[in-house]
Amino acid sequence: MKEVSIKELYKDDGFKKYNDEDLTINGWIKTNRDNGSLGFIELNDGTFFKNLQLVYDKDSEDFEKISHLATGSSINVIGKLVLTPNNKQPFELKVIKIKLLGDVEEGYVLQKKRHSFEFLREIPHLRVRTNTFNALYRVRSTLAFAIHKYFNEHGFVYVHTPIFTTNDAEGAGQTFKVITDKNKKDPNSFFGVPVDLTVSGQLHVEPFALAFKNVYTFGPTFRAEESNTTRHAAEFWMVEPEMAFADLKKNMEVIEDFLKYIINYVLVNNKEEMDFFATFIDKDLYNRISHVLDKKFEIMTYTKAIDELKKAVSEGHKFENNDIYWGMDLQSEHERYLTEKIVNGPLFLIDYPVEIKAFYMKLNDDKKTVAACDLLVPGVGELVGGSQREENLDILSEKMKKAGNYDSLSWYLDTRRYGGCVHSGFGLGFDRLLMYITGISNIRDSEPYPRTFGKIKF
Amino acid sequence: MKEVSIKELYKDDGFKKYNDEDLTINGWIKTNRDNGSLGFIELNDGTFFKNLQLVYDKDSEDFEKISHLATGSSINVIGKLVLTPNNKQPFELKVIKIKLLGDVEEGYVLQKKRHSFEFLREIPHLRVRTNTFNALYRVRSTLAFAIHKYFNEHGFVYVHTPIFTTNDAEGAGQTFKVITDKNKKDPNSFFGVPVDLTVSGQLHVEPFALAFKNVYTFGPTFRAEESNTTRHAAEFWMVEPEMAFADLKKNMEVIEDFLKYIINYVLVNNKEEMDFFATFIDKDLYNRISHVLDKKFEIMTYTKAIDELKKAVSEGHKFENNDIYWGMDLQSEHERYLTEKIVNGPLFLIDYPVEIKAFYMKLNDDKKTVAACDLLVPGVGELVGGSQREENLDILSEKMKKAGNYDSLSWYLDTRRYGGCVHSGFGLGFDRLLMYITGISNIRDSEPYPRTFGKIKF
Repeated sequence: MKEVSIKELYKDDGFKKYNDEDLTINGWIKTNRDNGSLGFIELNDGTFFKNLQLVYDKDSEDFEKISHLATGSSINVIGKLVLTPNNKQPFELKVIKIKLLGDVEEGYVLQKKRHSFEFLREIPHLRVRTNTFNALYRVRSTLAFAIHKYFNEHGFVYVHTPIFTTNDAEGAGQTFKVITDKNKKDPNSFFGVPVDLTVSGQLHVEPFALAFKNVYTFGPTFRAEESNTTRHAAEFWMVEPEMAFADLKKNMEVIEDFLKYIINYVLVNNKEEMDFFATFIDKDLYNRISHVLDKKFEIMTYTKAIDELKKAVSEGHKFENNDIYWGMDLQSEHERYLTEKIVNGPLFLIDYPVEIKAFYMKLNDDKKTVAACDLLVPGVGELVGGSQREENLDILSEKMKKAGNYDSLSWYLDTRRYGGCVHSGFGLGFDRLLMYITGISNIRDSEPYPRTFGKIKF
Repeated sequence: MKEVSIKELYKDDGFKKYNDEDLTINGWIKTNRDNGSLGFIELNDGTFFKNLQLVYDKDSEDFEKISHLATGSSINVIGKLVLTPNNKQPFELKVIKIKLLGDVEEGYVLQKKRHSFEFLREIPHLRVRTNTFNALYRVRSTLAFAIHKYFNEHGFVYVHTPIFTTNDAEGAGQTFKVITDKNKKDPNSFFGVPVDLTVSGQLHVEPFALAFKNVYTFGPTFRAEESNTTRHAAEFWMVEPEMAFADLKKNMEVIEDFLKYIINYVLVNNKEEMDFFATFIDKDLYNRISHVLDKKFEIMTYTKAIDELKKAVSEGHKFENNDIYWGMDLQSEHERYLTEKIVNGPLFLIDYPVEIKAFYMKLNDDKKTVAACDLLVPGVGELVGGSQREENLDILSEKMKKAGNYDSLSWYLDTRRYGGCVHSGFGLGFDRLLMYITGISNIRDSEPYPRTFGKIKF
């Protein structure tokens, strides 16, 4: 007998070729209801977001037993596929026989229909069985694949930059250090020097761009920030491409092309899941995403942005932080005002004051700003941070001496000593991008097993 | 003027359509030699393993200046593409103009042709510019993509299992723990409980297989083993698929299909690099790999293997460890004897004694062995470790009580309490697979920035 997956039945109307055929399938019971003579099981086999409807009646063997099968049970079903062109779902499986594979013990909390996200965070190993999280983690997987696919098609080499590092990329502080069981108190014991968990793969990936031209790293990164917000996690995945012979303009072109590609890829490949999010999580989802997909990204200098924000304040707009001045770090409220009210679409802010940006960013001719480009999008604020890198050895050395990392990052300067060139790159927080695409508003939900300050499950 | 990449010139004879055309290209000088009136630069732009030959003569502007350009410099060249059907390389670029983009300072160690791998390990940020490491890390990238592509095509959902974990999967000991800058001495300070760096994503990914059917994790894992071998690193990447409704047989079918697919993908997409390895690193490479590609993987029980080894000893074969008995842990020498001498091809060893395998493996009906399958391949020994998982709640509970992790892994048992089913999976060390495919014999070379006991660069 032919074993099928629910995906192959739904995709391209695959069910049509099995009309009236006996099929077998394994899966989990989502719901089971009956009226005493006729029963319906919604079965999901994990291959597709939609369920397969099983119909059983008094003709089925063991009607009584089947009608008592619990939500969550795993079963094997043998049945005949029947076309139902007049029903909501165009086909169903008329049960011939069901075998219980794995029962559900008492205490299974996913019996009830609705649970709060807070509650479900306590059971990350089970919440993936709910519609929301099932859809979410399938989109997460698709999005990750889209990223690899984009870079592969565009000739980028994937580099596994290390998790253990002897430097903390941006001097951003708040890193995790490692110790071993053997010498609990001595962070030097294993490697001979103290070792941090990486906060960014950028410094390690740049030297590879100077050999492969186009490279990227995509892996977990870490911050030991003791903050409890909906957007901060201690462990999160970052995508960090780096391109030799690319200036800021080229960098922005790639960011735009890349984002449009991967979001479109998700829309095409996870239509059912995206429809679910647009219905139940964020009614504005498709409108919001269309900003990124359909609009040309605008470009505005930081200096112009400050003027716009000052003007807004003078015209009576109230920010929580209303003290707007050149040189300030923009808050999310300012970024959102610019992208939502001023341009109503994705916006690159460029040429930030040198003082508020990382040491490796290229100093512009004005000596006051650097060639950074942060991408702001409606509904979120900053989505991507990028820059052209300082390729001038003297300027970079000077900045690193000031920053105090000239000695420890001497190896990094080698990329400017030996055949250096104009190069650029950007960083994208993967978990936040998933939040943006699905409308899920807490990073604790966008990660399969979230790790945040004071909280770790399993 | 058209900007081209070296890859597009070589691929599918792309150079032919540029005959006699002026082109521009950015890249790095690999070699530069001249005889006073005619000069040759081997240029690489990072997009392809092969170089582009630039030819300059007294007609070129600045012959003198060009002839002094150093190995490693980055340049922009404008030149005319000329077909050279009678030469080794079928085309070259006749230089019109070269612009130096990034010079090479004194002290550039990659001037000389040959360096030992030991020496190059001290400069992981520069060794990627050498032929061997350039080829190696491009193959690494291709191999990683092939893995994602295979699983994507076969409906596997990619799950980012966490790096921070509250349990150490196999009780394998020797884990890294994390502390923060803020409270150096207190491993509880950030999460409230002690946290390890993961040694395997398996336990975290299994619950996702019970929702998606087919899943995999692919990311960094960690061991704090204080060993200095060519095959152990403190940080390494693991691929760990997990499949619901799959028994040991299905598991082995997937392992075989998967390995053949990804190795073939590398051969097709990185032909130049693989030819390089077969020429300079491992003359036996293609023969060795053909074992995996062309042969049906054999299956042998552990019990039978012990018989074979005993027989070998009785017939005079000398192992370093010659004391062969049922229940022993096989050493690499034993594994290699089986795969090389007995079957001369890839070999699944199955049904290992329960005592020498992890607690989660399925107990066979004989109550003495578990449904494990380790894949042994000629030249290496073990390449993959897999098993059917124990789905029986009572048996697993009993084993976990014995192993002492029943309480701490109660959540893991939920996968057997609520709709459990037959499921299987395997683990593949990515860095070791890369060694196998390329013939590179030290894990310190297969990783871009290797981290081993007592040694970390940057």
